[in-house]
Amino acid sequence: METEKEKNAPFPGKLKIFSGLANPDLSQKIANCLNQPLGKVILKRFSDGEFHVEYEENLRGTDVFIVQTTNQPDSHIWELLIMIYAARMASAEGITAVIPYYGYARSDRKSAPRAAIIAKMKADLITKAGANRILTMDLHAGQIQGFFDIPVDHLYAKPVLINVLKNQYNEEIKEGSLLLVAPDSGATTMTRSYAKRVGNVPIAIIDKRREAPNISEVVNIVSSVPIENKTILMIDDLVDTGGTLIGAAEALIKVGAKKIDAQATHPVLSENAIQDIKDSSISNLFVTDTIPISLLKMIDKIKIISVAPLFAEAIKEIHNNGSVSKLFLD
Amino acid sequence: METEKEKNAPFPGKLKIFSGLANPDLSQKIANCLNQPLGKVILKRFSDGEFHVEYEENLRGTDVFIVQTTNQPDSHIWELLIMIYAARMASAEGITAVIPYYGYARSDRKSAPRAAIIAKMKADLITKAGANRILTMDLHAGQIQGFFDIPVDHLYAKPVLINVLKNQYNEEIKEGSLLLVAPDSGATTMTRSYAKRVGNVPIAIIDKRREAPNISEVVNIVSSVPIENKTILMIDDLVDTGGTLIGAAEALIKVGAKKIDAQATHPVLSENAIQDIKDSSISNLFVTDTIPISLLKMIDKIKIISVAPLFAEAIKEIHNNGSVSKLFLD
Amino acid sequence: METEKEKNAPFPGKLKIFSGLANPDLSQKIANCLNQPLGKVILKRFSDGEFHVEYEENLRGTDVFIVQTTNQPDSHIWELLIMIYAARMASAEGITAVIPYYGYARSDRKSAPRAAIIAKMKADLITKAGANRILTMDLHAGQIQGFFDIPVDHLYAKPVLINVLKNQYNEEIKEGSLLLVAPDSGATTMTRSYAKRVGNVPIAIIDKRREAPNISEVVNIVSSVPIENKTILMIDDLVDTGGTLIGAAEALIKVGAKKIDAQATHPVLSENAIQDIKDSSISNLFVTDTIPISLLKMIDKIKIISVAPLFAEAIKEIHNNGSVSKLFLD
Amino acid sequence: METEKEKNAPFPGKLKIFSGLANPDLSQKIANCLNQPLGKVILKRFSDGEFHVEYEENLRGTDVFIVQTTNQPDSHIWELLIMIYAARMASAEGITAVIPYYGYARSDRKSAPRAAIIAKMKADLITKAGANRILTMDLHAGQIQGFFDIPVDHLYAKPVLINVLKNQYNEEIKEGSLLLVAPDSGATTMTRSYAKRVGNVPIAIIDKRREAPNISEVVNIVSSVPIENKTILMIDDLVDTGGTLIGAAEALIKVGAKKIDAQATHPVLSENAIQDIKDSSISNLFVTDTIPISLLKMIDKIKIISVAPLFAEAIKEIHNNGSVSKLFLD
Amino acid sequence: METEKEKNAPFPGKLKIFSGLANPDLSQKIANCLNQPLGKVILKRFSDGEFHVEYEENLRGTDVFIVQTTNQPDSHIWELLIMIYAARMASAEGITAVIPYYGYARSDRKSAPRAAIIAKMKADLITKAGANRILTMDLHAGQIQGFFDIPVDHLYAKPVLINVLKNQYNEEIKEGSLLLVAPDSGATTMTRSYAKRVGNVPIAIIDKRREAPNISEVVNIVSSVPIENKTILMIDDLVDTGGTLIGAAEALIKVGAKKIDAQATHPVLSENAIQDIKDSSISNLFVTDTIPISLLKMIDKIKIISVAPLFAEAIKEIHNNGSVSKLFLD
Amino acid sequence: METEKEKNAPFPGKLKIFSGLANPDLSQKIANCLNQPLGKVILKRFSDGEFHVEYEENLRGTDVFIVQTTNQPDSHIWELLIMIYAARMASAEGITAVIPYYGYARSDRKSAPRAAIIAKMKADLITKAGANRILTMDLHAGQIQGFFDIPVDHLYAKPVLINVLKNQYNEEIKEGSLLLVAPDSGATTMTRSYAKRVGNVPIAIIDKRREAPNISEVVNIVSSVPIENKTILMIDDLVDTGGTLIGAAEALIKVGAKKIDAQATHPVLSENAIQDIKDSSISNLFVTDTIPISLLKMIDKIKIISVAPLFAEAIKEIHNNGSVSKLFLD
Repeated sequence: METEKEKNAPFPGKLKIFSGLANPDLSQKIANCLNQPLGKVILKRFSDGEFHVEYEENLRGTDVFIVQTTNQPDSHIWELLIMIYAARMASAEGITAVIPYYGYARSDRKSAPRAAIIAKMKADLITKAGANRILTMDLHAGQIQGFFDIPVDHLYAKPVLINVLKNQYNEEIKEGSLLLVAPDSGATTMTRSYAKRVGNVPIAIIDKRREAPNISEVVNIVSSVPIENKTILMIDDLVDTGGTLIGAAEALIKVGAKKIDAQATHPVLSENAIQDIKDSSISNLFVTDTIPISLLKMIDKIKIISVAPLFAEAIKEIHNNGSVSKLFLD
Repeated sequence: METEKEKNAPFPGKLKIFSGLANPDLSQKIANCLNQPLGKVILKRFSDGEFHVEYEENLRGTDVFIVQTTNQPDSHIWELLIMIYAARMASAEGITAVIPYYGYARSDRKSAPRAAIIAKMKADLITKAGANRILTMDLHAGQIQGFFDIPVDHLYAKPVLINVLKNQYNEEIKEGSLLLVAPDSGATTMTRSYAKRVGNVPIAIIDKRREAPNISEVVNIVSSVPIENKTILMIDDLVDTGGTLIGAAEALIKVGAKKIDAQATHPVLSENAIQDIKDSSISNLFVTDTIPISLLKMIDKIKIISVAPLFAEAIKEIHNNGSVSKLFLD
Repeated sequence: METEKEKNAPFPGKLKIFSGLANPDLSQKIANCLNQPLGKVILKRFSDGEFHVEYEENLRGTDVFIVQTTNQPDSHIWELLIMIYAARMASAEGITAVIPYYGYARSDRKSAPRAAIIAKMKADLITKAGANRILTMDLHAGQIQGFFDIPVDHLYAKPVLINVLKNQYNEEIKEGSLLLVAPDSGATTMTRSYAKRVGNVPIAIIDKRREAPNISEVVNIVSSVPIENKTILMIDDLVDTGGTLIGAAEALIKVGAKKIDAQATHPVLSENAIQDIKDSSISNLFVTDTIPISLLKMIDKIKIISVAPLFAEAIKEIHNNGSVSKLFLD
Repeated sequence: METEKEKNAPFPGKLKIFSGLANPDLSQKIANCLNQPLGKVILKRFSDGEFHVEYEENLRGTDVFIVQTTNQPDSHIWELLIMIYAARMASAEGITAVIPYYGYARSDRKSAPRAAIIAKMKADLITKAGANRILTMDLHAGQIQGFFDIPVDHLYAKPVLINVLKNQYNEEIKEGSLLLVAPDSGATTMTRSYAKRVGNVPIAIIDKRREAPNISEVVNIVSSVPIENKTILMIDDLVDTGGTLIGAAEALIKVGAKKIDAQATHPVLSENAIQDIKDSSISNLFVTDTIPISLLKMIDKIKIISVAPLFAEAIKEIHNNGSVSKLFLD
Repeated sequence: METEKEKNAPFPGKLKIFSGLANPDLSQKIANCLNQPLGKVILKRFSDGEFHVEYEENLRGTDVFIVQTTNQPDSHIWELLIMIYAARMASAEGITAVIPYYGYARSDRKSAPRAAIIAKMKADLITKAGANRILTMDLHAGQIQGFFDIPVDHLYAKPVLINVLKNQYNEEIKEGSLLLVAPDSGATTMTRSYAKRVGNVPIAIIDKRREAPNISEVVNIVSSVPIENKTILMIDDLVDTGGTLIGAAEALIKVGAKKIDAQATHPVLSENAIQDIKDSSISNLFVTDTIPISLLKMIDKIKIISVAPLFAEAIKEIHNNGSVSKLFLD
Repeated sequence: METEKEKNAPFPGKLKIFSGLANPDLSQKIANCLNQPLGKVILKRFSDGEFHVEYEENLRGTDVFIVQTTNQPDSHIWELLIMIYAARMASAEGITAVIPYYGYARSDRKSAPRAAIIAKMKADLITKAGANRILTMDLHAGQIQGFFDIPVDHLYAKPVLINVLKNQYNEEIKEGSLLLVAPDSGATTMTRSYAKRVGNVPIAIIDKRREAPNISEVVNIVSSVPIENKTILMIDDLVDTGGTLIGAAEALIKVGAKKIDAQATHPVLSENAIQDIKDSSISNLFVTDTIPISLLKMIDKIKIISVAPLFAEAIKEIHNNGSVSKLFLD
């Protein structure tokens, strides 16, 4: 039975958004942006740990969006798979897996002779379970879109972040003292893209190399401009243990950098990452809310910028068969 | 490079057995029964919890058996999926998923309008990842074999257990004082089958019913013989919280049962099951080693009977294209 | 060209119901409940017995329901497969196979080492032919839903039957003389469920066992109440040769049962079932019309209760994307 | 356990030939040609008509050939599907469906707007059930090979039949009085091919046409030589009711043909075909044993030529990875 | 953003027609018939020849028709596959591949032991890329419809051509001097079908045969009427090098035919076909515009009849879920 | 029939190598390395351009390797697909597509909103046609392995090239005057990997950027060492028009580089690449023979290093179920 309130929702009838257990705050924010309540679903664990999903709303013929980030690699994915499968068997018409952070994205190549490309297997399983479309953000490698046999709508956090950064470094940009740094060679392309958008600032690349197995790593700064007195902003798609960023920061400080900030879309922040960042020479770390950070662990250095409006806009356009290409600012 | 030792193994060359992280003791026992070392594989977690598999032996053209029980519902299954996928991509010729306890087997029917049959989805994912065959034991429902589109070799623990039980209850069987009890109506068929094999002993069924939502449950004993002075052996495929067995035991004691034992293939033993069993009127609980029980939690009442020889025999026959039907004693 | 009459039908345009050859009476009743004519289709056999289907109405973009029960195992299924395939190739948008009686449901487990789970193969073929959804009733085992990779809407005859039974046994229920009996251990769960709904009446189970291959079967009555002077209602999902029910009835009569009735959703009634029932101590056999009974063979003892209204209601809700969970009374 | 006899069979171990119920004589002849006993399998019908398959030999890793012709459209196909499926689930390594007569082959095109190409659906289902290869003969249209997504080995009866015909018409060929006739335009290509092989004899085509729905059909003989005093051999792939052949024969007799024979690979012979042929001006009808003819119905006019040696040779080559192209004489 | 003009188009919103590079004139004519502009799409080649597709209109939820004939075997098919795939990944709801001439259709049978049925592989690839439906015309063999696992709407050029021919040969039909000729045995059925429609005119068949490899081919005319003084119209589905038609024409002229015309739906016209036809005794060649003929090569003898209205009508009906069976005049 | 010569080949019986039309010289070299003749196959075009494949050797049960590089985007891929499909339908047991240069690899990401990831579609089609395994070299992005659902054996040209380079720049390495340069940011990782292997030489990156659409591109050299007097070796996976390399060379010369060489695995060399390179400041261009260079166009500056031994070794190991991981030097 639809309530009065539901009838007056902006997308009555067919659009339904459900939140998995991984990042309920982001799901709620997305729903709020759309002025639409989250769908009702029972998500529980039995005493032996087995997961149980039971949708409390009729899904027949509806356009279902399941929001579940996948930073906790086993349970988040497993819950997502079951939620998708249950929705398919409940006769949902469209099922979009909304995966703000696509975990295992770094397993996108064969890292050793008989290792697996897990990001591909994950794509296969999500499709097998029954998803018709993926909505995700800042994949570690753009090629991961090609792991799917269903349409992938890939958002960039950039439109939201660039605004923040332009404000933040307004002065440095004007006086030419801002330098964008790729903390490792893999981040070069992303750093270049930000450098162009922020205002054609120069870039440098950190080239860490170990000459022999038992010799300690040498951090090389490959740059076209001197580092001295520069305000540094390191750019990456994710921050995990923080080791790469912190190591780079130490090297940059040594050669005279004035201030070191960093920006990463996905705050994985595993192990002692937060404490290590607190203790490091990094002044500010800009991240988004694709992954939740426990309130208990939060520190001032970390600034969270919400991507909920971007996801909400994309969901609205997808549901209405509108174009989301305007959101694809690369 | 094959070592001398490997060359002298009884199944040189093509048969390889790998153990997942779920039940390494059972895997080792199976390997021992086959006089064959377990295959070498790196199984590790990265700092953010993502799982990594890397086979350290060439798998091209080999017949791989991956032993992984799935009592821990998310991680055991997820690890299994990745191990299967990695083996397939490393060009293994045959991949058998050996799953002594098939978790989620109780999710074999639609328990609510928009709930999922997770045991089916699990079967689909295992097949999608790349398994060619399943080897499992005492499925909660035989129909689960039909969830797979690949051959399933389904073992029964019965041949091993019946021997133990016949010994144990030798005297009671002779004097006609043994009664086998199905602790709920779902266990009726299994109980009947044991009753026949143990020596045509009578059975009874526990019929628990709640007349109305706010009235407490009534435990009914449906039996063709009086319970008084009987030695009771309850039969089930698994013991989870132990609640069903313990409740049945109390009811049976009340009507004069002499002694209460129980037998269940899979010792899930979640929550306080072990403590509750310790405190209950159950004297002995016979289980197998399809699921490991932590040494710290072990109690005297629990007797473990190993099914490793059964699995070893089945693996040998499957690999050699022999028949395993002789192991399928129903 | 749509006729005036078709335009005024309650589901103009997209919903189309076609009847196979297996149970045209039920199809017509379902159509009548929906105030909608059956779709026009040529179904014929060529001289060599090959089947030919030709839809005489445009199916492009329509929501097709094909009603075909499958008690005649080869031809009913084969006709259904061809009707589904022809509808898919004629660009129907949705194709629901309405299978009131799902034949081969008893082949739901591996009954012998190299036998097949035919109920699973049948599910695979129906899906391969092109069905998008299954609508069926009282499956022999609930797990058969998991044999399908498409949504299954599973109806229970219970809501209709319980009403009839409550009326029929009004007095016995009041005076506590009604006993529900499971004619074999497989029917225990279904019997319990009816016992609860009809008014919390007690149950008994027939446990037939053969001690050795050459010794005749012993029929054991496992019961918590005495059988004497009880009015018995045996509950099963189907009645095939009638042997199980008749054997149970004789055993119950012997121990003093007052009157024996039986109820089974699907009247397979193969071989001499009808004559045998006529000659037996069973007084009434309640069945539904999922399988047609030839008028020539009908006897007074058999009472047919139509499930057409249930199927009609389900088809209407499915077509309108409504919820059918209210029909899923378990 | 292998018996001594099995060990001495010419293809010990892996090759196994099973016969369905459709044409056991042909199966036995094929097995005899290979000096190999037919595999043991239980094929039975339950009282309600449901089919049951149970292989009595271990199939693990074997190369299984299932011989089942499909002239009885529903039951032969259905039995074949179950036999294939059971063999797959019993872990057979290779499964070849040997289908001497591929029924429904005339349903190879869309004969009406919303009719089905049943020959294609049949191919899909056989593949879905688990066949890896098809071995068949004289398909009604060569394009049916393209309906399969698995290899099809397609035999021609021609090599066997041409020998017989050359003998039979030795004299007529020499004196130039033999005329090969296509009984309808669809048989033109096959007739030409035989004409070339038999010894470059001329051909004619029967062009039956109805000028208007209510006017009787006119039989036109399109020929480059006069019919008078010719010995006629009509060529077709199958004979069903016999109507086409008999009608053509009458027309040919009218214009002075001396003697009329006919040849068709597959003797479907439905309805009153045998009696009608007996009563017609056709003198001899040459057919093969792809379809069995009941002894009771046999008449002298019908001459059966066995194709068992061809099938045996093909099975041997396929099993040994030899080439069967030498058997593909077109 | 939709322009005013687009809003006023007869199928606003969801129907979109895109043209590949193979036959843009036909695409434009089809669009004109529908009063709808062609969709905007960038189709280009990079410097190394790789093809690039980029739709310049939002496709989400639209019904896309991609018109691409496939006479240039590699590039036309390859471009079509990429256009289909890109449309699927851009979330088009329906994708119809409109293939006026289905190239490789003559590879519809196994022409040699280890040759491929390429028309089937092509069907598989088109489906794998993402097409939901095929719209094509005058397939070389009707069975090719069965190569697809998706609906095929198969148009006949006949309704358009018959009108032209009836006009053209009005007098000859009246006086009985028109003879329709199948230039080889494969064209017999098509020729008969035209003969009936044009006005029950007689037919003849050209039977070309080579008695031995080193002897020149003999052209045999199989006819029921004398050729002398007849006006001949040869009928075929396609004209490739023209050799078959020209050879037949010479033979017919020799035996006194008055005038020779020919008609073929698909003007492949490879190699020197046009010059050869110019130099031959063929007076008129009627073809359609399923394949474009370069203006530079056009000659007076070739008359082009457009099938654009037929395709436009079919597209309209398909999009509106109407019936196209009225267009399927066989 | 096997000839004496074939019987004495080092891999008698099952291994067969066939060459497509794209790079027959490389195929021959690979076969020579294996002392095995290339398999016999007819590859021809009909007059209308349609491709025809006919294997002249029995493939049943063989392990087929089809060598076809795919620099000519449409025809090479199309020919490969047909060769694979024909081999599958001829019952080959294993089919490995050996694709030295995987064309369309740069289409590995969505370059525009409604563009396609063609490298993924190509992978899907190759798999659909029937390949079981891929053997390729220096993919433009390692993630392309994840586009396949079958095993990919990915070779690196590095082991062969490093040897050549170490020799070539022996002196420069000793005196520290060698600088490896990534000609654009995408080549950074590959350049780093070579720098490490050649002897821990420094790297620089060319960062080309256009500040506004109508302003000419600025070439920035991001380096940790001065360019002056350095011998430069630019590293990339492929050279297409040569524009990137030539532009980078000009910029490096301007800032005092002593000598400029370049190295790229795949010599696409489209348009005027060869002439442009001849005219540029590049002294030497090291490439492999994954793509053939026409003799007519060869110039002295281009040095070709054969990768045939690497492919031969990989084929041998794959066929023998050996490990190729020793060839995977990253």
